Order: sequence, then structure tokens, then C-alpha cells
Amino acid sequence: MNLPNWILQRADLSPNRTALSCGEERWTFREVAGEAKQMAGKLRSLGMKEGDRVALLLESGPRAVFLIHGALLAGLELVMLNSRLTEAELAYQIADSAAVSVIASDGLAAKAGVRAIPASRLAALEAAAFTPASVWAEDRTVTIMYTSGTTGFPKGVRQTVGNHFASAMASVLNMGLAEEDVWLCSMPLFHISGFSILMRSLLYGMEVRLQPKFDETAAAREIADGSVTRISVVSATLARLLNRLEEEGLRASDRFKTMLAGGGPVPVPYIRRAQALGIPILQTYGMTETASQTATLSAEDAVHKEGSSGRPLFFSRIRIDGAKAPGDEGEILVSGPNVTPGYVGRFAERAALQDGWLHTGDIGRIDKEGFLYVLDRRSDLIVSGGENVYPAEIEQVLLAHPSVMEAGVIGMADEQWGEVPAAFIVAKSAVTDEELRDFCAERLAPYKLPKKFTFTGSLPRNASNKLLRRQLKEQLGGPKP
Amino acid sequence: MNLPNWILQRADLSPNRTALSCGEERWTFREVAGEAKQMAGKLRSLGMKEGDRVALLLESGPRAVFLIHGALLAGLELVMLNSRLTEAELAYQIADSAAVSVIASDGLAAKAGVRAIPASRLAALEAAAFTPASVWAEDRTVTIMYTSGTTGFPKGVRQTVGNHFASAMASVLNMGLAEEDVWLCSMPLFHISGFSILMRSLLYGMEVRLQPKFDETAAAREIADGSVTRISVVSATLARLLNRLEEEGLRASDRFKTMLAGGGPVPVPYIRRAQALGIPILQTYGMTETASQTATLSAEDAVHKEGSSGRPLFFSRIRIDGAKAPGDEGEILVSGPNVTPGYVGRFAERAALQDGWLHTGDIGRIDKEGFLYVLDRRSDLIVSGGENVYPAEIEQVLLAHPSVMEAGVIGMADEQWGEVPAAFIVAKSAVTDEELRDFCAERLAPYKLPKKFTFTGSLPRNASNKLLRRQLKEQLGGPKP
Repeated sequence: MNLPNWILQRADLSPNRTALSCGEERWTFREVAGEAKQMAGKLRSLGMKEGDRVALLLESGPRAVFLIHGALLAGLELVMLNSRLTEAELAYQIADSAAVSVIASDGLAAKAGVRAIPASRLAALEAAAFTPASVWAEDRTVTIMYTSGTTGFPKGVRQTVGNHFASAMASVLNMGLAEEDVWLCSMPLFHISGFSILMRSLLYGMEVRLQPKFDETAAAREIADGSVTRISVVSATLARLLNRLEEEGLRASDRFKTMLAGGGPVPVPYIRRAQALGIPILQTYGMTETASQTATLSAEDAVHKEGSSGRPLFFSRIRIDGAKAPGDEGEILVSGPNVTPGYVGRFAERAALQDGWLHTGDIGRIDKEGFLYVLDRRSDLIVSGGENVYPAEIEQVLLAHPSVMEAGVIGMADEQWGEVPAAFIVAKSAVTDEELRDFCAERLAPYKLPKKFTFTGSLPRNASNKLLRRQLKEQLGGPKP
Repeated sequence: MNLPNWILQRADLSPNRTALSCGEERWTFREVAGEAKQMAGKLRSLGMKEGDRVALLLESGPRAVFLIHGALLAGLELVMLNSRLTEAELAYQIADSAAVSVIASDGLAAKAGVRAIPASRLAALEAAAFTPASVWAEDRTVTIMYTSGTTGFPKGVRQTVGNHFASAMASVLNMGLAEEDVWLCSMPLFHISGFSILMRSLLYGMEVRLQPKFDETAAAREIADGSVTRISVVSATLARLLNRLEEEGLRASDRFKTMLAGGGPVPVPYIRRAQALGIPILQTYGMTETASQTATLSAEDAVHKEGSSGRPLFFSRIRIDGAKAPGDEGEILVSGPNVTPGYVGRFAERAALQDGWLHTGDIGRIDKEGFLYVLDRRSDLIVSGGENVYPAEIEQVLLAHPSVMEAGVIGMADEQWGEVPAAFIVAKSAVTDEELRDFCAERLAPYKLPKKFTFTGSLPRNASNKLLRRQLKEQLGGPKP
């Protein structure tokens, strides 16, 4: 399936619609395409040709969007570098992806290596004349994103035109689409959660309201005044946003439609608070390899399917490896046109799929009605006295306690059982470990009860807000035996 | 791009949503899939295997929908026969398509040939056990529809999974999508206009409200009470529907969204009447070869872009062959994933595309803002004294006269000019040819004025409601020289 160049087609069809806004500034699709053409010409003037890779290390903002669209128009493959990485981590990704050039926001250029071209220097170049491709092939690689990877070397995941297309279109079939839709993007553009909003904008003709940094005060007001209709959040930003809405006595406008929440199940108390504020939460399961959402739980199902990530989007299939009956636990396998065709660099030869299925490494189950429950990352599994224990299950119980703000559970070495769960708690009000133990004992089998509670001010998380359990283990005193 | 089996996936994801209703009856997606599985097993019991062709000659209705979905589940290619054709025309299409079996509604079986299996006999068969494919490949042929063709042999046009998918998804990007959408289908299911509604239903999870025959009274009431939100019409059904709404003093419900009007430009007086009734009309240009819409004019643009078919849908590109500047006239060329890969039977070897473009045979122009104007079918072009005259342009002027219900214009042999326009008129109130001539003279160049007016009770049209100009020529006394 070949598609017209999304940037040019959108500028032709909806030239005067707002494409992007940030603070008081706004740009139409014609204007964004104009800025992108300039950027594309400047990138081409560096000698890069169609299919070459450019690594981008950018501070989020309108200039980053123009540069991203410019690189797409120039026919390049975009290696999206995470601005929170260290120099050494960046050097690995730049080398592994064999990027021809590295473009970095001026403030980030220092850690992007000696070859990096600061954005201001790029902007000063003369744009080379060239004709952008009028058609984008389905198998063209648009982006390469490195998965955070809990161990070993990060893998550069390819995301094609077809992957981004399937993801955006499946999302529409699930959520609907209206001309007045505006998506608030405060997620990093170098992650699929943020980048996918840019792709949806082009395909839908939809405004992206960009926040270079998450600002819960502005977000709360825009949700309340109806100037945005969609937002993507992770659990931490979700909590801050609900707090701020409640503190300011605000409520979502009738125009507001959905909050898309990634990064694990949202506890029911949050779902109810959001409901009271007029905010339907869609909980979603997805990853870099699936170009964003691949299963989503509707707001109506959120309470009676607590902890679920919902059902597959229309183009995806999900199954549990080795499951013989509904409810059987095992590795989650995903298939569909949103799934990556594979990797670059040192993992280029590794097949992304086995028999057509992506092995996610996550453990889950699917109930009789087809709802997926993600139990845990396989690497986090705690085996205690021969029983499998999934940290996420324990964390969810702890999060339901009114005094718990955040919870992280890991396996702790134990002479008798091999391993037992240990919990790290960020409290929001006074609580003792006895109270928490009693609370859990009512809700969990004895072998699942945390044997140790550590109270702390914050939990270690990576750039995508995933809990870094290995750091918790180090805090407990070295990795498990 | 492989997609999950649409019928099974939809039944899994939205089992309890209404898929289909007709009169007082309604079926959920689970129920439709159940009926389809039965039908699929019965079709398989005839010995047909994946990829075989079945010709379907069906009276519209829920049973036809179950049989269509059943044939899709069985992995067959569906040759959609037009129930208004003669025996000889049907025999040609059945032979040309090399259909393995012919299934006909009982009332139509007599004219489908000796091999035809009446639907009641199929229903009485035992269903064979088989497992439907879990994945549909993009290049799988779903349907074969014969184009009416003004001359020569009809061509069997293939429409693939990818064609129907691209058409339905492009339509969503243009029109939006909401969970409460219900599409009223009174178009024949054997034409792409009706069949495409079934495909949208599966992809969107949307109810199809089926009218086996167009019933303007029921349609008007359902538009007014909000039980349908979308409808497809052609000019004749559009006129009847507006009349009935006005006669009954009805107005579209606030839930009603759009009327999709195919088969040529809608005159501005109709657009205004529809507006007054709360009905936004989307005028569309499409054909069998483009699996329905390929350009659509929004309701907002209808008045200031009178006579236009709008801009391309997002996945399509449209250009005018040989045009050097905006406004230049020429053959309309279309490209995109909704365009057929080719034909079957005697035209199997003919390439559908030349350099990636479908040559539609239609004449049009595209203005500076990218709006397409379809001037005429190439075969209908009247050449008069070296000037090109497009019948549709004259018809539109005539239709704007308050006494004219329908108008058809053809070329008539003329000693002096080679050819001159002649008009056929269905009047709705008293009018003379002098009055019409004066009316036209104010609006058209002298060489475009009809030299003859014939008043008649109705105009000859084919099953898709296209005017049959050749029959008008015969009425005038033989084909043009």
C-alpha cells in the first residue's frame, strides 16, 4: 500500500486548519509544511540522500516538530534520541544506527558527540533545492527508537509508514474522530507516545497542542475550557493532573473526550476521581515495537475490568503463548500491521517476529471476554516457594490504599522461600507497615504478601516513567541471588 | 499489510453492538457472524475452496448480508450481479468471471441460468466444518463488480481487501466517526455504493440500517427522529427525500450528520433546500474502480464551489491528464490504495493503471484550490463547430429552472455544426421550450444552447441511476453520425 506524502497531502487538503500550537503561537498545516520544506532543504544541503539516517537529539517544541517533519520530507530515517540519556548511551545509539548526521538542539549538542550539528548551525545553512517524494511506501522506515531494555544492549526498533499508519487508523476506529479534536502532547517526542501524536495529526488533520514540558496547571485549564479534547498521560502525570483539577475546582469541558493512559493499569480510585471530573480514561497497552497502542480499555469497562488493558485494537491480534484456556497466564504475543518489521544495527539480523508474532516478554492473561491483563514484565517475575508472584499485582493492591501515593515491589532473597516480595512505598499520608500488611492480607494470598516495607520519597523511573526495579534491588542490597 | 478477518475480529471486539437492522429486526455483530458462519459452511459444502469465485444474484435484505458475509468468511471472491440485468447480460458476467457457483435469491434464480442454486436450496444444505482464515491479505480479491460500460463488453473490476480498507478509512478521515453512527443503506448491495456501507460497518463497528428498497417516507422519519446519522443517495432519491421531508414538515435530527450524494453534481437549489432541513450534503466522485468515493465536497464548500466534486480523500491523488495550469480541462486520472489492481475474464490482461494512474475516461478540471470539477464522461462529449460542449453543464442549468424536474442532454446531428445539443425534459410544472431557451440563453454561450427540447414523462437510467444517453439518442432517431 502506497500513500501520498502525508505532509504535502495534508497541506493541500487542509491548508488553513491549525496543525500545531504552543503557548500563544499557532501554525496551520500549510505553515508547518512550509517550515518543514525549509528544514528538508537544509538537511539535504548536508549531503544526505533519501534513505539515509539522521539522529535527532531535540528539546521538545515547535522547532523540533519542524525538524522532524523536515527530515520526513527529505526522505530520511529518523533516529529519535532520548534527551535524558547519558553521553555514553547516546554514543552507542548513534554508532549502532550508523546515522549519517546528528542534529541536536543547541542546549543538548555538547553531549551528542563531536559530530553533532547544533540546530542553530543547521538553520543558518542555505536550503538545497530538491523535490520531496510524492508517495510514501508502506515499508519505508520512518523512525528508529531504542527500547529502554532492562538488561543488555538497547535495540533500535524500526517503525515504518505502515506501522504508524496502522496505529493511527486503529486508534480512530477505537476512539472516533471529529473535526474539533485537539490532542494535548506533553509526552517526549522521542518516545512513541509523543511521536504518534504527530503522526495522528497529519493523518487526521488534527491540531497538536504542544507542551515542551508537562505543565499540569495549563493542562488542567485547557481541559476545563475545552481548548483540548484528548490528552496522553502516564501514571505520574495523571496523578498531578487530577490533583490540580481538584485543587482548582475545575472540571473537564463537555468538549473533552478522552485521556489515554499508558504505562500500566490505573487504580480504580483514580478512575473514579477522573469520572467525577468528567474525564473518561482509556488505559492502553503498547510499546515501541507496536508503534503505540495495541490494546485499549474503554472508560465504561474500567471499573468492572479493573487492572485490564482492554481488548486489541481492530488491526491487532493478541494471544497468550501456550494458553490452553481463557485466564491461562503466559507471555503476551502480538500480531498486526502496527508491529515493527525488525531492528537496525547489532540486532538487524534478529527476527522481530516468530511465526508472525511479536514475543513481548510481558506476562499476561486474557479473560473469557477477550480482555487482556498485563501481569508483569517477565524479567520482574518473583518466584517464591514454587509459586509465581507478579509485582504489579501487589503494587495495584498497595495503590488502592488511601495513604499510598506510589508503590514498587521487587523480589528479595529469602532462605526459606528462595525469594519473597518487598515493597517500596511513597506515602501521601501517615501509615505504618502493619496497616499496609493487614490491608494486603485481606486482598492477597499469603505467599504474595510483602515481607518488607521501605518508605521513600520517590521511586526510580526511566524516561518513559517505567519503574526501574533493578535500582530498587540495588537499594535493598545487590541483585537477587 | 495483513489485517485480521474483519467479520471475526468485529464479533470479538464489539459482540453486542448492533450490526444490522431492517424494519423491526436487528442483529448484533455476534449474531451476524453466527449467521455468516452457517452460510460459509453451506457454501463450502458445495465443494468451493478458498479463492474460488461465487456469483451472487440477490434481492437486498438481511439474508443477502448474511450470504455476503458468509462468502467472505468462506474465503471466496464475490461476483456481485446486478439484479436489474437481463438474462443475457447475466450469462455474460457469470461466464466471464468463471464463477464456480451461482447463488440466487429464489425470486431471481430463473434468470440466473440453469446452474444457479436458489438461496432456499443453499439454506437447506448441511454446513461443512471448516476454519475461516484468521488473517486477510491486503491483495485478496473481495469483490468483482462489472462496470456498466457505455459501449462494448462490461469489464469485471476487482476490489481487494486493501481497496475496501483504504476507501473506508479515507472516508472516516474525511467525515469523522462516532460510536452512535448508523448508516441508512437503500442503495443496491451489488453496487459499490451499497457494498461499501457493509465494509464500513465491519471496520467501524457501525450499524447498517437496511432498506431493501428505497422508501422515502421511512427514510425521512428516521432522519428526523435521529435513528440514522448517515445516508447515501443519488440525485433521484435525494429529490424524493427532500420532497418528503418538506411535505411532512420534518427536519433532520441534531444527531443526523451527513448525506453522501453520488452520481454527479447536486444543483445549488437542492443544497439550499437540504441546508434548510438541517442536512449537510457531501457530494462525491467515485466509481467501481475506486471502491467508492475518491473525492468529496464538504457541505461548507457546496455553495461557493458549485458543481465541484470536492478535493481528493486523504489517500488519493487526482490530476488532469496533460493539464499545464489549474483550470485546464482533460481526462481525470486517479491514484491511491483504493484503486483497483485490475480486471478479470476477457480484460484480465489489460492493465488498470498506466504509470500508476487510473484513466477514468471522465473529463474534468481542477481549480487553484484543488477542487475537482467533473465536466462529463468522455463518451458523451458533444463537439459543435469545433467547440467542446459538455452535456452535464447544460443539464445543470436546465435543472435550475423552477419548472424542470429532470433534464438529459445529448448531441444531435447537424449539417452546419456537425453536432448540436438536444435536451429531454421531465417537467414539474407548465413550461414551454421558448421559456427554457431564454432561460439558458442568459446562462450559456450560444453554441451551448439546446436546439431541440423534447418533453417526456421520465428519462432512461441504468441500475446505478446514471442517465443512459444512448437511449435518448435512439429516441431522437439513431446514433449520431
